[in-house]
Amino acid sequence: MAPPDPGLTRSLVLPDPTDPRLTRRVTGLDHEGREVEAAVVHERPLTLFLNGQEIVTMMTIGDHPDYLALGYLLNQNMLRADDRVTAIEHDADLDVVVVRTERATNYEAKLKKKVRTSGCAQGTVFGDVMEKFEQVTLPTDAVLKTSWLYALTKTINTCPSLYLEAGAIHGCALSQGPEVLLYMEDVGRHNAVDKIAGYMFRHGLEPAGKIFYTTGRLTSEMVIKTVQMGIPILVSRSGFTAWGVDLARQAGLTLIGRARGRRFLALSGAERIAFDADLSAVGEEDRKHRRKAAGVDA
Amino acid sequence: MAPPDPGLTRSLVLPDPTDPRLTRRVTGLDHEGREVEAAVVHERPLTLFLNGQEIVTMMTIGDHPDYLALGYLLNQNMLRADDRVTAIEHDADLDVVVVRTERATNYEAKLKKKVRTSGCAQGTVFGDVMEKFEQVTLPTDAVLKTSWLYALTKTINTCPSLYLEAGAIHGCALSQGPEVLLYMEDVGRHNAVDKIAGYMFRHGLEPAGKIFYTTGRLTSEMVIKTVQMGIPILVSRSGFTAWGVDLARQAGLTLIGRARGRRFLALSGAERIAFDADLSAVGEEDRKHRRKAAGVDA
Repeated sequence: MAPPDPGLTRSLVLPDPTDPRLTRRVTGLDHEGREVEAAVVHERPLTLFLNGQEIVTMMTIGDHPDYLALGYLLNQNMLRADDRVTAIEHDADLDVVVVRTERATNYEAKLKKKVRTSGCAQGTVFGDVMEKFEQVTLPTDAVLKTSWLYALTKTINTCPSLYLEAGAIHGCALSQGPEVLLYMEDVGRHNAVDKIAGYMFRHGLEPAGKIFYTTGRLTSEMVIKTVQMGIPILVSRSGFTAWGVDLARQAGLTLIGRARGRRFLALSGAERIAFDADLSAVGEEDRKHRRKAAGVDA
Repeated sequence: MAPPDPGLTRSLVLPDPTDPRLTRRVTGLDHEGREVEAAVVHERPLTLFLNGQEIVTMMTIGDHPDYLALGYLLNQNMLRADDRVTAIEHDADLDVVVVRTERATNYEAKLKKKVRTSGCAQGTVFGDVMEKFEQVTLPTDAVLKTSWLYALTKTINTCPSLYLEAGAIHGCALSQGPEVLLYMEDVGRHNAVDKIAGYMFRHGLEPAGKIFYTTGRLTSEMVIKTVQMGIPILVSRSGFTAWGVDLARQAGLTLIGRARGRRFLALSGAERIAFDADLSAVGEEDRKHRRKAAGVDA
């Protein structure tokens, strides 16, 4: 919608762990029976309407409801790339967000037929999402330098985040070359993805040349969403599912998992990788950030 | 259904990482550009019918479709504790499982109205699930010895599992005292929970005196399901969400998170904990099992 910024050289959106709406302090007992205080992440319902139609109620940490709403609709094929959004109305008291478009919309029939996807195995996609998936052609000239990959994972692991503050949260990031442009967090991994999709739509960020990063597993749903967004490279510190690998190979997506410290594993599209990094200069993760070294994490 | 076994002294069900249906070998490149082979977990669709009605299509690793079907229906209040199941028919070619009950069922109206819950933020519960949640009274005389807790986490971390074989999978366990009775894994955390609920129903295992363990986060949905199953103690190696803590306190559930090595944090129901373990004898997790030390993992 807005023209893209040609001079992107630093992060546009990063988590704000100091936002008091996002966490709460609670007291409990630790393993020695001592009373301790801990930060826990908030989750609140957000009901999404597209024009006059109620679409879904999501549980979210509540930041960026506008991007979340747009991204959800885009990733479910309810909003088209050429749609003109005339208004996004967020009512924080009612926990409602309404997206209004120039085009009249009606997804009553579509909302009745869902298919669950993997991950938490509670994800849902609609039949036409798979149809669109099969039509996407990803750019073949994209490159991933391993030095960019290490810069990206270092930024994610060390920049202030709700994860480091309170844990129990997923993160997704969009980067270009060695720079992280967007880093969004949410209790739901899918929400974090959708917020990035919504931001890209709202601000006209092109997917070509971008790298998508997730803390979560590389399941079918993550692969489908990344391909739908037109992004050629998907990286995760977590593992793979077989269907995720199959879909990535079918779409020609570069799929990199288990990216921790200097290690990673590419199971699709490895021809895009340029091994330029000096591995002896890439450290293992220190204890603080190793917390994120999850295998079970999506 | 079957009478409970009074002499439970060892595990009844453990993961079978050698089952060739559950993983596949795929080749890729590692961080040094070398060709390597890795195991990835399978996920396949399973469509569940209750009598004549199609309820849902789940993505699952595919073991224990009977327990998964029963547990899903129980945890969604579509099957009652006193229902008589007359047949469970699984067709592995069609990826269909049909549960038949003596009582005639019709959930057409219910299937239309869902509310998403947290976790992956794609979970769904129905309105009547919250109503039932509010009616559950958990046993107040339950006890959790910290020595049992450490025995439980050690078993989960060290016994052969799909997690250790291929990663990217969630685990749930049911234990009694220091013994793990059931340990189920699935790509979807909710499937693993449901398989345990289905097993308990099928074999008449009582929830009193049991401890429920999950590798995933302590979200609202995990708390709701544990309380619905009547289990008084829920343990996770992962973190908490604020709503999960609120619901646990409301229901009087003992909620323990961040259980790794000798550390843990109890944010609800800490009065049930008996600190009997000698902490100097409890080791930190070694590197192999620290892989599970996720904060971002549900």
